[in-house]
Amino acid sequence: MPTIARPSGRALDESRPVSLEIGFARHAEGSVLIKVGGTEVLCAASVETRVPPFLRGQGQGWITAEYGMLPRATHTRGNREAAKGKQSGRTQEIQRLIGRALRACVDLKALGEMTITLDCDVLNADGGTRCAAITGAWVALAIALEKQIKAGVLKKSPLRAQVAAVSCGLTKAGAVLDLDYVEDSAAQADTNFVLTSEGGIVEIQGTAEDAPFSEEQFNELMRLAKLGTARLFEAQRLALASVA
Amino acid sequence: MPTIARPSGRALDESRPVSLEIGFARHAEGSVLIKVGGTEVLCAASVETRVPPFLRGQGQGWITAEYGMLPRATHTRGNREAAKGKQSGRTQEIQRLIGRALRACVDLKALGEMTITLDCDVLNADGGTRCAAITGAWVALAIALEKQIKAGVLKKSPLRAQVAAVSCGLTKAGAVLDLDYVEDSAAQADTNFVLTSEGGIVEIQGTAEDAPFSEEQFNELMRLAKLGTARLFEAQRLALASVA
Amino acid sequence: MPTIARPSGRALDESRPVSLEIGFARHAEGSVLIKVGGTEVLCAASVETRVPPFLRGQGQGWITAEYGMLPRATHTRGNREAAKGKQSGRTQEIQRLIGRALRACVDLKALGEMTITLDCDVLNADGGTRCAAITGAWVALAIALEKQIKAGVLKKSPLRAQVAAVSCGLTKAGAVLDLDYVEDSAAQADTNFVLTSEGGIVEIQGTAEDAPFSEEQFNELMRLAKLGTARLFEAQRLALASVA
Amino acid sequence: MPTIARPSGRALDESRPVSLEIGFARHAEGSVLIKVGGTEVLCAASVETRVPPFLRGQGQGWITAEYGMLPRATHTRGNREAAKGKQSGRTQEIQRLIGRALRACVDLKALGEMTITLDCDVLNADGGTRCAAITGAWVALAIALEKQIKAGVLKKSPLRAQVAAVSCGLTKAGAVLDLDYVEDSAAQADTNFVLTSEGGIVEIQGTAEDAPFSEEQFNELMRLAKLGTARLFEAQRLALASVA
Amino acid sequence: MPTIARPSGRALDESRPVSLEIGFARHAEGSVLIKVGGTEVLCAASVETRVPPFLRGQGQGWITAEYGMLPRATHTRGNREAAKGKQSGRTQEIQRLIGRALRACVDLKALGEMTITLDCDVLNADGGTRCAAITGAWVALAIALEKQIKAGVLKKSPLRAQVAAVSCGLTKAGAVLDLDYVEDSAAQADTNFVLTSEGGIVEIQGTAEDAPFSEEQFNELMRLAKLGTARLFEAQRLALASVA
Amino acid sequence: MPTIARPSGRALDESRPVSLEIGFARHAEGSVLIKVGGTEVLCAASVETRVPPFLRGQGQGWITAEYGMLPRATHTRGNREAAKGKQSGRTQEIQRLIGRALRACVDLKALGEMTITLDCDVLNADGGTRCAAITGAWVALAIALEKQIKAGVLKKSPLRAQVAAVSCGLTKAGAVLDLDYVEDSAAQADTNFVLTSEGGIVEIQGTAEDAPFSEEQFNELMRLAKLGTARLFEAQRLALASVA
Repeated sequence: MPTIARPSGRALDESRPVSLEIGFARHAEGSVLIKVGGTEVLCAASVETRVPPFLRGQGQGWITAEYGMLPRATHTRGNREAAKGKQSGRTQEIQRLIGRALRACVDLKALGEMTITLDCDVLNADGGTRCAAITGAWVALAIALEKQIKAGVLKKSPLRAQVAAVSCGLTKAGAVLDLDYVEDSAAQADTNFVLTSEGGIVEIQGTAEDAPFSEEQFNELMRLAKLGTARLFEAQRLALASVA
Repeated sequence: MPTIARPSGRALDESRPVSLEIGFARHAEGSVLIKVGGTEVLCAASVETRVPPFLRGQGQGWITAEYGMLPRATHTRGNREAAKGKQSGRTQEIQRLIGRALRACVDLKALGEMTITLDCDVLNADGGTRCAAITGAWVALAIALEKQIKAGVLKKSPLRAQVAAVSCGLTKAGAVLDLDYVEDSAAQADTNFVLTSEGGIVEIQGTAEDAPFSEEQFNELMRLAKLGTARLFEAQRLALASVA
Repeated sequence: MPTIARPSGRALDESRPVSLEIGFARHAEGSVLIKVGGTEVLCAASVETRVPPFLRGQGQGWITAEYGMLPRATHTRGNREAAKGKQSGRTQEIQRLIGRALRACVDLKALGEMTITLDCDVLNADGGTRCAAITGAWVALAIALEKQIKAGVLKKSPLRAQVAAVSCGLTKAGAVLDLDYVEDSAAQADTNFVLTSEGGIVEIQGTAEDAPFSEEQFNELMRLAKLGTARLFEAQRLALASVA
Repeated sequence: MPTIARPSGRALDESRPVSLEIGFARHAEGSVLIKVGGTEVLCAASVETRVPPFLRGQGQGWITAEYGMLPRATHTRGNREAAKGKQSGRTQEIQRLIGRALRACVDLKALGEMTITLDCDVLNADGGTRCAAITGAWVALAIALEKQIKAGVLKKSPLRAQVAAVSCGLTKAGAVLDLDYVEDSAAQADTNFVLTSEGGIVEIQGTAEDAPFSEEQFNELMRLAKLGTARLFEAQRLALASVA
Repeated sequence: MPTIARPSGRALDESRPVSLEIGFARHAEGSVLIKVGGTEVLCAASVETRVPPFLRGQGQGWITAEYGMLPRATHTRGNREAAKGKQSGRTQEIQRLIGRALRACVDLKALGEMTITLDCDVLNADGGTRCAAITGAWVALAIALEKQIKAGVLKKSPLRAQVAAVSCGLTKAGAVLDLDYVEDSAAQADTNFVLTSEGGIVEIQGTAEDAPFSEEQFNELMRLAKLGTARLFEAQRLALASVA
Repeated sequence: MPTIARPSGRALDESRPVSLEIGFARHAEGSVLIKVGGTEVLCAASVETRVPPFLRGQGQGWITAEYGMLPRATHTRGNREAAKGKQSGRTQEIQRLIGRALRACVDLKALGEMTITLDCDVLNADGGTRCAAITGAWVALAIALEKQIKAGVLKKSPLRAQVAAVSCGLTKAGAVLDLDYVEDSAAQADTNFVLTSEGGIVEIQGTAEDAPFSEEQFNELMRLAKLGTARLFEAQRLALASVA
């Protein structure tokens, strides 16, 4: 039984409060400012009636994502990627993950020849930015799709499920749900789970930072992830209901 | 006498409502989310105890700025500069302008060997983003400097004056104050004025978009700019007073 | 009354001698080597029968400019931008200015679907290179357009006016016309004026380098600019007459 | 019970033959050409007596990796990354994975101020290149460390365990071990497991390509991964024994 | 008469053993791993039914080459060009040379609208990598062309001659054939000869590293080059015969 | 006996008129505008009291070169390398050649810890730009060295010989000296010879453009090159004498 408390005082299976402010990016077809504790990510969906070259003439659509972090979203200022002239490996890894996660819940054939780009920009960072980006991007995507249905461009929604993500990890306090920055920096292992509202696994990224971990530990992390994403699915539904 | 109304219905010398939300970027030494009508720019000041190579050992500090625009801050999505691998000429021109404008109101000797970087990121764009960035960056800078004084790093403020900026232009409605995007796109001429609270001119950038303009027209634009910046100086003072 | 002389011994309203050597770039449709005191800029106009993508099918032409400085045009060698792999913010700012200045004096509809690129390369620098580039580029452009008329490609000249530029500034000697490098380095304020032969303002770029300046000072700079450009317009006309 | 055979005719839990040719890169401190079926990766370890800036003066070492693929390692020629001027997101993601995987099995304090870079270059690709790279890089690393011990630079090996990796996936034939290119292209889900010889999990990367998968399916993939890596650990030991 | 022996103990006109392992890059239309002493270069030919823009619609084909060196092909690790973001001047110079050398022995009209790219990647380097690349690339090209003939795409071979290359140089031992790395580093002059099996000169690149050399010395180097390439032509013929 | 005349009407062994205008780049330690027929290259020598990292502390100097071509130096406008963001392979090949050629005639030990950079910028191109650049750069270098001697920085000249370059080629008119652009474009073979005033060979770059050439043809090209460089050495001496 762990006797070391989490830095935030949260229970082991307690996630941070979530809020979803819809319409923050006023020009976007769908947008949300998601806040998960101190992490804030602006997610904006842009709809374009074209597809990338490798999909032309195949009668299907595409979902892609880009990720960025404002230079001063973090404790110490980071260099601006536009000024450095390239996106870091971390940035590219995250935006590829977001894109895959969202494609896994969309029927691309039903989408038709359309590309939806999800821009996820971190305004304030306190751990779990890629998970917040996925959870928020799903909402921005859902709003943009709803707009296409209302406009008669799409007959029915190509969304097959909700998608949300949460990170769980092994810390001195034990296996915990929804790591913040302080926990993340010192965790023995950190795993991001991208799950669907129907109980499916979309992506698992588990990494031992310091020492390998066991299958039992991994199973406990997955149990926590299901708890955490259930709350995120509820928050997504409430946010969408508020604008229906 | 012009009989054509401004698209927004504003009077010729009426500027848009301004709000300044202090502390938006929680990790920054000073930050503000400035809203000028539909234009929203997050300005964050980062203090570092080093100076660029060309100033080393000269006992003076430096103020610099970087500017960015989120891809979907605009009506149609723009390419992400980090993904393209370089900042556009427009971006570099704007961030050089912001840096010069703020340096002109700071005693760099009194600042000591310290660099303050102002990150100005446009979250929503509706014309006048560079002017909003300058006006907001001054507030972020003032807060960051105040924090250095409270921490005993600086003995007194190296700020010599307030700085704010506004764009004025020649439109079908006549010479107008504080152009929004619709007006800016169709203006015959557009001039950005960076002025100080003490009546000084820091920078003037006047451009004829279509046809040259006259000295009389220019003088009318400068008259409007003084009106507009007077209101911005008042808004800056009120915002700082609220956190004093 | 200023008692400090200008470093060059020139009167306050005295500009440097100007010469225009036409045809220096033998392959170009129009070219001139402009010398303004010790500043020498090779301006070459290239005509191509295509327009950039954003203008296709609109029945109008385009004027654009590129600017460069040879590494040893200056007192100490500068890095070659091609070797560094990118153009500086200063370079981009200048070439955007040259392009805008020339477009303001051309009827782009009358030009038809044609792009004219003005390459302005500084061979020797002694202050005022962007102004010399604009003044010279106008001559190169006029020659290239004349050639199109003679070849029957254009029926009449799409040129609406002459364009020239000069820098004026506030120095220890007072407000002066046509700053050279020594003056420019130490000026309190520096303003570039791009004016037309018909008295119009095309662009004003005024910058306080050290301390803000007043409206009265600005008005004196504009008075000097009109004097200076009047001499440049005369030089442009003489040069063109010599090749008519 | 699956009635669809694997394209290669292998049993569901049958991995491809593995060979490890030690010393292929003659100048490297340790090197191996690993072949896993038709996939061939040249892994070379380079030892340098310096550490990256962020570790200086901390008395610990660093392990890092770089990954590349020859343009014609694949069915159709890919563009050369050096010619394109940047590494793809995929390349960066893979080399970050290899680096993390190897660091997890090394006591960096015991390594001392030394950097070991593992270059993993794919000469022929037939699926599973990142897994082959990790498995081979561990051997190259072990040889390089052994050489440091023999030379008296290190007193004992900082290796804490063997590390190997294998991909498992869900195909029409069912859950299978060690996907080749044909299987990988059509898999419903693909998971890379990086495990240690002591039963620990170093990294899990599971991705649903088309539809989400269940926890039961995931558990079956992990069972297969343990089988597969057990064989790889044996091959690593045999290869090292041959050069001891 | 030189009394200083070559570092390798070879006679002045003795070249290193050559081997050609055909089919190393299994997916390529033609490939060979050429070994010239300790230098090993993997040469792969890729056939594509398109031509570069400047040749479109002219009914002729194109041969081009790319060159790379694995980071640890050398004594000390070199930086990866893909990571640095650009190819060095040396790399570009070499790949331009390889392309020219191969084009000189092919009837591009007879090739038809087809591009063949020769990727030459150095796996181990011990001097003379560009010469080995040319000699090996010719074999990869010949195999790829033979495959086109067998497939009925080409009626007859567009090859006009064999091409091979060797470096000769002036060392302390005198004028020598086929320099290895140790000799190359210390040579007074180094010349690469690209010759055809019919006695023609395709390319000569002679460079004095330290002091200029005489015409007599140059003639002796050319005599050695003829000897050396004669052996390479024989090796090329034997290798091709083995797969015919 | 060739009955086809050269396009320019020159005799087979007739080179173009050469002029050397010293001091064109006024800020440079040495400079010359060299004209060889219609080819004009501005060569500027910059002296800096530092050496590249690989030479530090070795008590010797360094000579290096950079090459560029103004966009409109040619018949059709070329893209500006600074705008493209990289130097072409051709540019890098040429500037490496110029650097090697000049280093071969300088005693780098006698130069001391000093770097001299030769910037060679083509203002007008009509074939043979790299040869003109070498011939002119030698003059700029000699002037810069002379200045160091006069200033007492160097005791005696580290120059060991004059260096000049000329291109010879095989054309329809036969083997000819000093190809202009029209001849160069259609030549069967083109060879650049860099020779010293003392009869030494510094560099030979011979390339068959279309069909291989014979040793006899090569020997005739070398004979012409000796004739041509003899005239260039004379021109260099006269130019230097004029400023002594």
